Amino acid sequence: MPSNRIAFRIGHAVVLAFYVLLFTIASARAETDPLPSWNDGPAKQAIVAFVKVTTTQGSPKFVPPEARIATFDQDGTLWVEHPMYTQVMYCLERVPALVKAKPPLAKIEPFKTVLSGDREAMAKLSLKDLEKILAATLTGISVDEFNAEVKTWIATANDSRFKRPYTELTYLPMQELLKYLRANGYKTYIVTGGGQDFVRVYSETTYGIPPEQVVGTMGATKYGYDKNGKPFLTKDPKLLLNDNNAGKPEGIHLMIGRRPVAAFGNSPGDQQMLEYTKAGGGARLAMLVLHDDAKREYAYGPAQGLPATKVGAFTQALYDQAQKQGWTVISMKNDWKRIFAFEK
Amino acid sequence: MPSNRIAFRIGHAVVLAFYVLLFTIASARAETDPLPSWNDGPAKQAIVAFVKVTTTQGSPKFVPPEARIATFDQDGTLWVEHPMYTQVMYCLERVPALVKAKPPLAKIEPFKTVLSGDREAMAKLSLKDLEKILAATLTGISVDEFNAEVKTWIATANDSRFKRPYTELTYLPMQELLKYLRANGYKTYIVTGGGQDFVRVYSETTYGIPPEQVVGTMGATKYGYDKNGKPFLTKDPKLLLNDNNAGKPEGIHLMIGRRPVAAFGNSPGDQQMLEYTKAGGGARLAMLVLHDDAKREYAYGPAQGLPATKVGAFTQALYDQAQKQGWTVISMKNDWKRIFAFEK
Repeated sequence: MPSNRIAFRIGHAVVLAFYVLLFTIASARAETDPLPSWNDGPAKQAIVAFVKVTTTQGSPKFVPPEARIATFDQDGTLWVEHPMYTQVMYCLERVPALVKAKPPLAKIEPFKTVLSGDREAMAKLSLKDLEKILAATLTGISVDEFNAEVKTWIATANDSRFKRPYTELTYLPMQELLKYLRANGYKTYIVTGGGQDFVRVYSETTYGIPPEQVVGTMGATKYGYDKNGKPFLTKDPKLLLNDNNAGKPEGIHLMIGRRPVAAFGNSPGDQQMLEYTKAGGGARLAMLVLHDDAKREYAYGPAQGLPATKVGAFTQALYDQAQKQGWTVISMKNDWKRIFAFEK
Repeated sequence: MPSNRIAFRIGHAVVLAFYVLLFTIASARAETDPLPSWNDGPAKQAIVAFVKVTTTQGSPKFVPPEARIATFDQDGTLWVEHPMYTQVMYCLERVPALVKAKPPLAKIEPFKTVLSGDREAMAKLSLKDLEKILAATLTGISVDEFNAEVKTWIATANDSRFKRPYTELTYLPMQELLKYLRANGYKTYIVTGGGQDFVRVYSETTYGIPPEQVVGTMGATKYGYDKNGKPFLTKDPKLLLNDNNAGKPEGIHLMIGRRPVAAFGNSPGDQQMLEYTKAGGGARLAMLVLHDDAKREYAYGPAQGLPATKVGAFTQALYDQAQKQGWTVISMKNDWKRIFAFEK
């Protein structure tokens, strides 16, 4: 390499060194609490202590960077799940377009009820009816079409209580936690009972989690060619894995191939993921979000005497297991200073 | 923050700046060809040109870092697949231990033939027989036991021709290519017809590819508890996805959720992965390794008049498709200066 190029590079290095200096001074001044929306209680302390022991070189509980895997349930853990899972709202709102494409469906249940708009009748739909709606609205189209549909919907649909896009209903303390873990070398994953392809559409912009780090309920796809010979994938109704309960550790093994060292959930569907994480030995963090704040969000159990609901029930049995196995329960009411970014 | 801590940090920054200078000078001197085992021919030129246009800011074919996905077949693309896939060798060599655990198998085919050690008889085993052996040796045990078994085997087993561990039979030019792509912000994945769990055991140490970036033929697992109540996963015989042919793009969608921009293969089992990659628009790199070097490795086709074989056949139809669709064929004989790291 000619010496004038070396000189040029040294010039570059000096400029870079200058910026390193500036940045160091700036960051020293700006050094602040990475979890400002958390009250200083046992939940926050458990998080900070866990990160410290697993990332400090020489600590007996040090976890090498490649093994720093943290998994998060989505509905009720990262964002609001009441009164209905967002994905179910999507499927219900897709029904008119579906019927327009296939008019005979208008006279067939459960599509007829959904089209009527009768909320009371819709609330009474059975799980089997819901499954029919999910299969009809989530499969049978190409992966690219599906992505485009969800992208448009999620950008425009609003939650009925907060009158805001669903993507604004993420919990600020959990967003801070995701960033804090990533800043400490953790790879953050969503492990959701929701559809893997659905969540992948907005996971990067909403949570900073790329599609390849979303584990969810998985359907098969079918490879084929269009009339011009161009290959594409179609979403198939065949279920590959129901990513709930035992399906969560199974899905984690399938998609990640390593056991997480930290896991976060809020309902019995997350029990096995938390057990599996905790059983790994060494430092492990298992946390459950308890929805006990009816004023700022919702309050439901039946754990701790909160009213039972259909969606995301936090049972007393789960609460007892948490106490017994050393999982930390996060009280939204007591542990979270702010719940949403839009809160004053 | 007290000013003495700021001063301390500034001190740190000055030390860091000094190292930045040193490193810059050293790297300017050491700047060398990232692909030294490649001859300067069309294959190498295609790779370098592709990386340049996709990673240069302002280039019309610039690919943002998060979309830089490159997928590699394993057998015959990253390492030797002759005379038999390494994983099949593992399964055959596992049979004695299997029969020891379940003695009645000794009298049942195809286990009887494998135990006999009669190579000629073993070569005649049908695909159905092989599937029985694979199912018996790859499933029915816990994920942890399986990982330990494979880890021990891969560290000690030797290839019959080269008398070296299989993990030394990786192609040096492809190892350089993996590193070159990663150095340019590409996330490298293995997409193999082999067992996902099998390849994951050695992928990190052999290729620098972590387990979560291995896509392969996938079996289900079953979550359960041991007698002490400790949860574990068992490998189940249920097949979730055969990661060959159309299964490759389907597996890529399932595991990654994005279309690759570069893909590398060597046989008809990789055809759909290459088509799918190429169909994405923008700059795309699709490459096929042609085994035409009997002296240093093997020569087999039947493409280009090379002798046909059972394992990894590169057909003339695939060769013709490569020409037609602009995939680059890598001639091991002409494009690779060195094939193995152990070569003199």
